[in-house]
Amino acid sequence: MAILGELGTQVLIPVAGLIGIAFAVAQWVLVSKVKVTPGAASAAGGAKNGYGDYLIEEEEGLNDHNVVVKCAEIQTAISEGATSFLFTMYQYVGLFMIVFALLIFVFLGSIEGFSTKSQPCTYSTGTCKPALYTALFSTAAFLLGAITSLVSGFLGMKIATYANARTTLEARKGVGKAFITAFRSGAVMGFLLSSSGLVVLYITINVFKLYYGDDWEGLFESITGYGLGGSSMALFGRVGGGIYTKAADVGADLVGKVERNIPEDDPRNPAVIADNVGDNVGDIAGMGSDLFGSYAESSCAALVVASISSFGISHDFTAMCYPLLVSSVGIIVCLITTLFATDFFEIKAANEIEPALKKQLIISTALMTVGVAIISWLALPAKFTIFNFGAQKEVANWGLFFCVGIGLWAGLIIGFVTEYYTSNAYSPVQDVADSCRTGAATNVIFGLALGYKSVIIPIFAIAVSIYVSFSIAAMYGIAMAALGMLSTMATGLAIDAYGPISDNAGGIAEMAGMSHRIRERTDALDAAGNTTAAIGKGFAIGSAALVSLALFGAFVSRAGVQVVDVLSPKVFIGLLVGAMLPYWFSAMTMKSVGSAALKMVEEVRRQFNTIPGLMEGTAKPDYATCVKISTDASIKEMIPPGALVMLTPLIVGTLFGVETLSGVLAGALVSGVQIAISASNTGGAWDNAKKYIEAGNSDHARSLGPKGSDCHKAAVIGDTIGDPLKDTSGPSLNILIKLMAVESLVFAPFFATYGGLLFKYI
Amino acid sequence: MAILGELGTQVLIPVAGLIGIAFAVAQWVLVSKVKVTPGAASAAGGAKNGYGDYLIEEEEGLNDHNVVVKCAEIQTAISEGATSFLFTMYQYVGLFMIVFALLIFVFLGSIEGFSTKSQPCTYSTGTCKPALYTALFSTAAFLLGAITSLVSGFLGMKIATYANARTTLEARKGVGKAFITAFRSGAVMGFLLSSSGLVVLYITINVFKLYYGDDWEGLFESITGYGLGGSSMALFGRVGGGIYTKAADVGADLVGKVERNIPEDDPRNPAVIADNVGDNVGDIAGMGSDLFGSYAESSCAALVVASISSFGISHDFTAMCYPLLVSSVGIIVCLITTLFATDFFEIKAANEIEPALKKQLIISTALMTVGVAIISWLALPAKFTIFNFGAQKEVANWGLFFCVGIGLWAGLIIGFVTEYYTSNAYSPVQDVADSCRTGAATNVIFGLALGYKSVIIPIFAIAVSIYVSFSIAAMYGIAMAALGMLSTMATGLAIDAYGPISDNAGGIAEMAGMSHRIRERTDALDAAGNTTAAIGKGFAIGSAALVSLALFGAFVSRAGVQVVDVLSPKVFIGLLVGAMLPYWFSAMTMKSVGSAALKMVEEVRRQFNTIPGLMEGTAKPDYATCVKISTDASIKEMIPPGALVMLTPLIVGTLFGVETLSGVLAGALVSGVQIAISASNTGGAWDNAKKYIEAGNSDHARSLGPKGSDCHKAAVIGDTIGDPLKDTSGPSLNILIKLMAVESLVFAPFFATYGGLLFKYI
Repeated sequence: MAILGELGTQVLIPVAGLIGIAFAVAQWVLVSKVKVTPGAASAAGGAKNGYGDYLIEEEEGLNDHNVVVKCAEIQTAISEGATSFLFTMYQYVGLFMIVFALLIFVFLGSIEGFSTKSQPCTYSTGTCKPALYTALFSTAAFLLGAITSLVSGFLGMKIATYANARTTLEARKGVGKAFITAFRSGAVMGFLLSSSGLVVLYITINVFKLYYGDDWEGLFESITGYGLGGSSMALFGRVGGGIYTKAADVGADLVGKVERNIPEDDPRNPAVIADNVGDNVGDIAGMGSDLFGSYAESSCAALVVASISSFGISHDFTAMCYPLLVSSVGIIVCLITTLFATDFFEIKAANEIEPALKKQLIISTALMTVGVAIISWLALPAKFTIFNFGAQKEVANWGLFFCVGIGLWAGLIIGFVTEYYTSNAYSPVQDVADSCRTGAATNVIFGLALGYKSVIIPIFAIAVSIYVSFSIAAMYGIAMAALGMLSTMATGLAIDAYGPISDNAGGIAEMAGMSHRIRERTDALDAAGNTTAAIGKGFAIGSAALVSLALFGAFVSRAGVQVVDVLSPKVFIGLLVGAMLPYWFSAMTMKSVGSAALKMVEEVRRQFNTIPGLMEGTAKPDYATCVKISTDASIKEMIPPGALVMLTPLIVGTLFGVETLSGVLAGALVSGVQIAISASNTGGAWDNAKKYIEAGNSDHARSLGPKGSDCHKAAVIGDTIGDPLKDTSGPSLNILIKLMAVESLVFAPFFATYGGLLFKYI
Repeated sequence: MAILGELGTQVLIPVAGLIGIAFAVAQWVLVSKVKVTPGAASAAGGAKNGYGDYLIEEEEGLNDHNVVVKCAEIQTAISEGATSFLFTMYQYVGLFMIVFALLIFVFLGSIEGFSTKSQPCTYSTGTCKPALYTALFSTAAFLLGAITSLVSGFLGMKIATYANARTTLEARKGVGKAFITAFRSGAVMGFLLSSSGLVVLYITINVFKLYYGDDWEGLFESITGYGLGGSSMALFGRVGGGIYTKAADVGADLVGKVERNIPEDDPRNPAVIADNVGDNVGDIAGMGSDLFGSYAESSCAALVVASISSFGISHDFTAMCYPLLVSSVGIIVCLITTLFATDFFEIKAANEIEPALKKQLIISTALMTVGVAIISWLALPAKFTIFNFGAQKEVANWGLFFCVGIGLWAGLIIGFVTEYYTSNAYSPVQDVADSCRTGAATNVIFGLALGYKSVIIPIFAIAVSIYVSFSIAAMYGIAMAALGMLSTMATGLAIDAYGPISDNAGGIAEMAGMSHRIRERTDALDAAGNTTAAIGKGFAIGSAALVSLALFGAFVSRAGVQVVDVLSPKVFIGLLVGAMLPYWFSAMTMKSVGSAALKMVEEVRRQFNTIPGLMEGTAKPDYATCVKISTDASIKEMIPPGALVMLTPLIVGTLFGVETLSGVLAGALVSGVQIAISASNTGGAWDNAKKYIEAGNSDHARSLGPKGSDCHKAAVIGDTIGDPLKDTSGPSLNILIKLMAVESLVFAPFFATYGGLLFKYI
């Protein structure tokens, strides 16, 4: 048995979760000390933070009072827009949730003909709980996962909109102050999300255990509903939010920057509020739901495999909870890591931001490696067996340490490669910027080539992780590698959320008419934020690949498939069609962004043409109509891609059976990962190539600029094309591959019983 | 036994091949009647073709003599440029051929330790020829395939350059005359290529049989080298030619159309000759080698499987030659089909061109269906068995008819879908054109979305073909479906080659300073040509998918692999990395085009800036330097992608073994098909969206135009981005997936004996 007893486990997990939540609250309190009410702001800021310097506005003779009031106003507008969008979306999503919950209950309940009698277990000897009750508990877990995901996304959005004006105001004091505010706000979201995910999962397991007792097979089968709930909400968050944000962004840029020649985020642009709202609902709420989903799914995948391995069979609760314990350690490690950014060191210049964020990744990975070693030693027996497609495979505790560790380090490698390809400090982005000399076409060609190239190393990193972790501990090893990659999620989310917060801070500075020096500072924050956003997406995709493979393995085990043979035509056509799905899905989402953007363009043009005094700044634009266009478009347009993802496993499983479905899952996985990585990095690179030209920090960059030059115009076109790639279709693909896998897992018993109708009757 | 005896087969195949060659020669004679020497041209043309009307030039008072001389000059320049490029390329490729031939001999010879003793057969009882001699014959077959491929490409290029000025001159008489000249020239290439491929393969089999005698297993094993030779040359043709043509095209457009505002193909543009040369070496020679490779490979795949099925075991020569018989029937069918375009009907207006080309597809498919039914009835026994991964599967002759037929009709569906998505007669391209209203960015977003969407139906068509043909006759069925798709290759190539010929004809009209009415006619030919080029690419990709699957199946059989289990990590990482290879490859080729285009842009700019009187038309540009830039760039840049494709199977097979290699092949196949289709269609759609705006044939089109408007400028950017997608990276991917599969097949015995070093020693 393990050194850590069951009692220790029962204490350690909730305590770590609660510490994480407490830390999030503490960070929030620190952020809230920046006041967005006039007067108090400078007093409190000046006194408490020990900054006695003049603020830039005061130096330049601007009225501090007005600026703060304006920031507060804009913040309120953004927050209200985001809240109203999310509530509208939740109405539709809530309806879907209810329908799908019923579907789960009916499909899973029907397996034993809705019988309430106990059944013989599939894997262990003895009797297990009836399928009907497992259907009920799966449904409950689904709803819990869905609600946790929605709440996580919503809170993330609230925190981000709470933080953005504060970041703007702090930027007056210096880039370091602004950085800390943005980063702390990101940390609030990161810790809240990872801790609440852990705590809710922990409570669910314990509550379900009251009913299931010793039937751990059924218990963890029903828990998989939690992952499905989490990810299906993430789908709508990513797709809906992604369409929202990019319709507004593309629409605003096309008229504002290209036609009217006014700067980004100019308050005269009617789509500017919608654009800023979009950052919060897409990049923040969507991203939060996405990573929460990955976390929930990889935990579920690990638990379901563990339940039929020696942990489950010998009822070793501590070892069974190893996935949760790894996450608990992760929270503590990330807590320490965060202090390095906010307390142990101080950012003094703009060029220190990116290294500071990179250090976060390195520190958290290094500390976590130690943490994993300790928890593997404490929580695992020296030897145990893991279920491996019908057989039991012997594994040692240090083996699982390697699985988690390789996932963790693969994540770091993916992060660094992403940084290399998307940061304008290195040659790839500079080459893309340079290609703007010959116009938009070469910019696009170079950008696409960059994205394609950027998949090479991440794919090798994922492949090595898969091979090593599978060789050590079969599908459980892969699930643990995924959890390893996600174990530093709190830090990952913090640096990821930091990006849109800085982006919004810049927008608010522009809209509030603050000095261009403030805008320069927020732009520096934002440029680093683009890179970290790309890194975050890299993590999200890398972990999604591992998670879906783990889920795929769990699905195959649960559906009783022994072999998925590519040489079988049933499997091969699944593979081929599966590899096509990401293209179909991307076609839908990109077209949606394009059409919604066209509508936005028309509206913005209409306002510029019909509202007298708008260009001169004497009349106010009608922001609300633009917000409504984005809202309506995203709600309407998220349904077809959502249906594609949700219905494919059901249709394929029911009509073609589990073998073809296995092919579809594998095909979608291997093809989707590539498009997702290349789309994110291409988009990130274009964005930063544009910023590189704008910033003009080197001779080369100055030779391409300044803003408004032909090169810059070409770069803006690339940036606009990249918007839907990096923020809509690319990141939504994570969900596509994960969600189809977890859905297949949940419905596996149904497919195994009734699936393959078409082949049966033809 | 079959109705058709061995003697009948031995007569039918070469006779069909010779008829095809004779028909090609006859078409060539008809084309050559259009004289490009002054005086004779109008006399001969007027008298022989019965056209007594005035030529446009005469109407407009232009001097006919000068025009013809100028056309002849330009034609010579293009032909010389293309010949010189191909010869330069052949020097490098020849070196590669020798090295790789040695490699094949050494690798395959080493299997039995270079022993000259006969060995027991793998599949049948009795003794088979020693591995060393099979290595020797494989090497010989490789060289034969390579040389046939090079000769095919070269002849195609020669015919095309021979035809383009003639098409221009015929355009003076009317669009119908020009169409017939362009189409006939395409037919010369189509028939020459498909017939010579058949005849050479037929002779090779008969010659090899003199040595092998009854050892058909060894005989058809060694024949697979023919496919490898064909496809490896196609790789260099597609990649080198693709980089050449697009570097020149993009470079010429970026300076000429965008910066200097001179029309496409303006003789003042220094890159214009290089651009026209490129069409001939990339789209013609590359395409020819590509389809020849597909034909050779699918025949080899079918033959190698047949040799270990009942056809081979019972030494039924006629049934064994069924793949060749299908191709023979195809040549006759295509011959009849061609007459519908050139003799039975006449094109009178520009809008009749596309329907005429579409009719070619429908007629050839319908006739071929009948032809296949007849030959299946004549050449096959009523019942026989086909090797199916270790077992023998019983098949009826009508079953193979279905396999060939489904491939044939799937090809037609792919062709029509491609037409729908790339022709500006339908809404998808019109939507893309419409999105140019809001600039280049939305144009690119809509274009990418269109390409992604266009994969859906072709993938389903391929999937159904695979499922049905595999269910009927295992991997042999898939090979036959591929051959079915390729059976109308002569027609496919004719309508495909027609495109670049028309494109060049337009270029020559522009350069020769002919009336804009001539240019309008050639533009109409060219617009239809863009669509047919896309259709041709669709065929090439669809058949490549089937071919590589068939080769994959043959590889797996020959390597003795029973199961390729996705759940094995060795296979899965192969799948993941394989799916990444098309991205890596595309990154290389696109970047190459981009860099070469940048060099071209600099040179063109330099000439415009330093040669006085160039813009005014009083001085001649230095065409040769631009030709040299394209030549050097493409030779240099084709090596890394070539090495990636050629070395991957060798490295993976040797280090990781046949299981991982199987994964890589399957991954590259399912992922590559999608990118190839979407890249081709996106590029085709952008090109035709631009042409749609330029032509202004509807109210909608006119509202977007005219040439030079902002919409049109946005469309030009899309067109330029599409160039490398549709003509370099997209079509090269066919070769990637086919070539890796055939290479694995050829080296299968080596990998099976020595492969997997890394896993063995770790």
